[in-house]
Amino acid sequence: MAEPYWTPERVDQVVSARARILGPQVWAAATPDPRHLISFAGGLPDIPSLPAEELLRAARTVLDRERKEALEYGGTFGPLPLRDAIAERWTRLEGVPVSRDHVIIASGSAHAIGMVCETLLDPGDIVMVESPNFPGSMRTIRSFGAEMVAIPLDADGMRTDVLEVKLAELAAQGRRAKFIYCIPNHQNPAGCTMSLARREHLLDLARRYDTFVLEDDAYGELWFEEPPPPSIFALSNGEHGVKVCSFSKTIATGLRMGWIQGPPALISRIAALRYDMGSSPFLGRVIAEMIRNGDLDRHIDRLRGIYRRKLERVEEALARYCAPYVIYTRPKGGFFLWLELREGLSSRDVHLAANERGVIVGQGPQFFADGKATNHLRLAFSYVAMEEIEEGIQRLGEAMADVAARSGLK
Amino acid sequence: MAEPYWTPERVDQVVSARARILGPQVWAAATPDPRHLISFAGGLPDIPSLPAEELLRAARTVLDRERKEALEYGGTFGPLPLRDAIAERWTRLEGVPVSRDHVIIASGSAHAIGMVCETLLDPGDIVMVESPNFPGSMRTIRSFGAEMVAIPLDADGMRTDVLEVKLAELAAQGRRAKFIYCIPNHQNPAGCTMSLARREHLLDLARRYDTFVLEDDAYGELWFEEPPPPSIFALSNGEHGVKVCSFSKTIATGLRMGWIQGPPALISRIAALRYDMGSSPFLGRVIAEMIRNGDLDRHIDRLRGIYRRKLERVEEALARYCAPYVIYTRPKGGFFLWLELREGLSSRDVHLAANERGVIVGQGPQFFADGKATNHLRLAFSYVAMEEIEEGIQRLGEAMADVAARSGLK
Repeated sequence: MAEPYWTPERVDQVVSARARILGPQVWAAATPDPRHLISFAGGLPDIPSLPAEELLRAARTVLDRERKEALEYGGTFGPLPLRDAIAERWTRLEGVPVSRDHVIIASGSAHAIGMVCETLLDPGDIVMVESPNFPGSMRTIRSFGAEMVAIPLDADGMRTDVLEVKLAELAAQGRRAKFIYCIPNHQNPAGCTMSLARREHLLDLARRYDTFVLEDDAYGELWFEEPPPPSIFALSNGEHGVKVCSFSKTIATGLRMGWIQGPPALISRIAALRYDMGSSPFLGRVIAEMIRNGDLDRHIDRLRGIYRRKLERVEEALARYCAPYVIYTRPKGGFFLWLELREGLSSRDVHLAANERGVIVGQGPQFFADGKATNHLRLAFSYVAMEEIEEGIQRLGEAMADVAARSGLK
Repeated sequence: MAEPYWTPERVDQVVSARARILGPQVWAAATPDPRHLISFAGGLPDIPSLPAEELLRAARTVLDRERKEALEYGGTFGPLPLRDAIAERWTRLEGVPVSRDHVIIASGSAHAIGMVCETLLDPGDIVMVESPNFPGSMRTIRSFGAEMVAIPLDADGMRTDVLEVKLAELAAQGRRAKFIYCIPNHQNPAGCTMSLARREHLLDLARRYDTFVLEDDAYGELWFEEPPPPSIFALSNGEHGVKVCSFSKTIATGLRMGWIQGPPALISRIAALRYDMGSSPFLGRVIAEMIRNGDLDRHIDRLRGIYRRKLERVEEALARYCAPYVIYTRPKGGFFLWLELREGLSSRDVHLAANERGVIVGQGPQFFADGKATNHLRLAFSYVAMEEIEEGIQRLGEAMADVAARSGLK
């Protein structure tokens, strides 16, 4: 057998500058651990409630009613019925007029963020990002050669006072940020929601420093008691906020469907760079039907109860098993609880000790724009089975006790 | 009302270098003509045979059997059952071992080509392309700042003798092609299929000039009498051919599903640059089920008969209405018939005259890598309704007669 022509070394020699920035490691390659794990790691929806029957019913309706349109190309912007359904729904939800021209359908919000970056970023551009932050988005931004400036968070979301200082520093150097990337609602990983005052400050800064806010709203609809404050998109009448949204958390991650909602001139330019002939019109029309027939609203309402109960169960267990070791701010929605560990208790060691006990949690420098990890763990309470939560948190508590003892903490 | 912040002029100022290469025009924006048209324009499948029931049945099976896996993230490479089904099917069809590691699922073959370009192309790189060619692919290649070198076609496909000269010229300048892009089977738009001798020459050139062949195989399975010669992937045991394939023409363009089949080291590097969390595991598993249960093979077999009959109908009508004005080589499969117009009869004028009669056909410099259009029309025989073919070709013949008379031809 001859030597293969394509070796990793050879590939290394011919890849693009962008591919070289990221290197050979595959993100989210899906190599499952063979053990049965109790997972608080992934930002994944609850399994038993996945709306398979609603999807099949909508698929049947769509294929009976509009088979040709559903199974043909739907255009670069995505199928009109979904753009219209999104526009109507968000006009209703936020009270600010959204038209189909504000909307382009994407193959999930990760794809949406990639499209925004492709359209706007060149090497050396600057993007302001919350830190901690979703590693996938930071990886995408980084791949375009952009420089990220880390802005810390507190319980009210992005520290816009710090942002103001950083934007002023850039302005003094004659530079500006291409955009400010944030996850204002039920942030990933920190769980916090940006207050209205911070949103207004953020919008003011975007206007003053001639930039805009890219708001990643994967989790906004999954609130527990009341909806989060209005989006920057809504506060600015669609002028300074570009929202990337997803059906991954409200329907299923396995669809790979989301959208971008922003000013028509920018949406159109994003479309102009697109080369994939648009996201699936079939799936788009199925989702449009689930919006129209009320299934999506009913499902989201059900999910709010499920995730609230899961969070309560996690909190009860944390109080029972982990109280000496952690503090946290209760999230108002979403999938994540951000545990700050007691001083001297290393999040890395706890992560490893929990893993040895078959419990996985999120941790580490990949959540931080500047790579400087704080001493936190991310607990996703969304995916873990209700009946495994107590067992999982108990083992996590044992891991903490073990690390504490080894570290000489009382 | 305040002036909008985002005007087209403002967007122009902030977009990336790549966005600037393509400009503001949106490709395939889907703005339908309000008239009833007889369309020989788009490379679209036959409508009545779209396999809606097969899709619904497979969706039901998948959601009953593997709901969790179908509705969760499936990983960057795409769902394993589809990668395995493709690998088994193509091992069977071409007799060369294909494994799951050779396969990454894409959101259609346009997306697949984009991923290959993203991974390999930097501004100034060289790509050899057939001319005429599919405008969408050339647009994608161009967006990465690559330079295209046009290689002409004849009835046996790419003129590899010309390719050899061009590759030698480049080599003499110390340059090489990143890859050679071709559509070897039932070419779009020219309809020709590359002969085995040409494929062997092409592979030999790829080896000698240290490059590889990106073979776009959207139409290869839709042959009429016998399958086309083996792919470059098969001829090179998966070393010098990278195939991009699609379910658009064999199932439906509205799914947006396809794949790349190439050397594992390259496939892995393509995955490493990917940021969209993979193509839909739901759709991927539905297609895998259609492969496993035999529906896909049965459907493709049916399509071969449908497209052969449509081509026959088109040929009969051409003989009746257009014989004085055109010559062509009968395609052995696919969707396209490439009409060469009689000297003095302008393809642009015929295109316009046909359009005035409610008949649309493909034409123009967008099909040519060097922008130098030859005097051809592309007739897609796949989409037009069987019962409208004769009427459509009759009107096309009238358009030709009209233009011929105006041009003083007899």
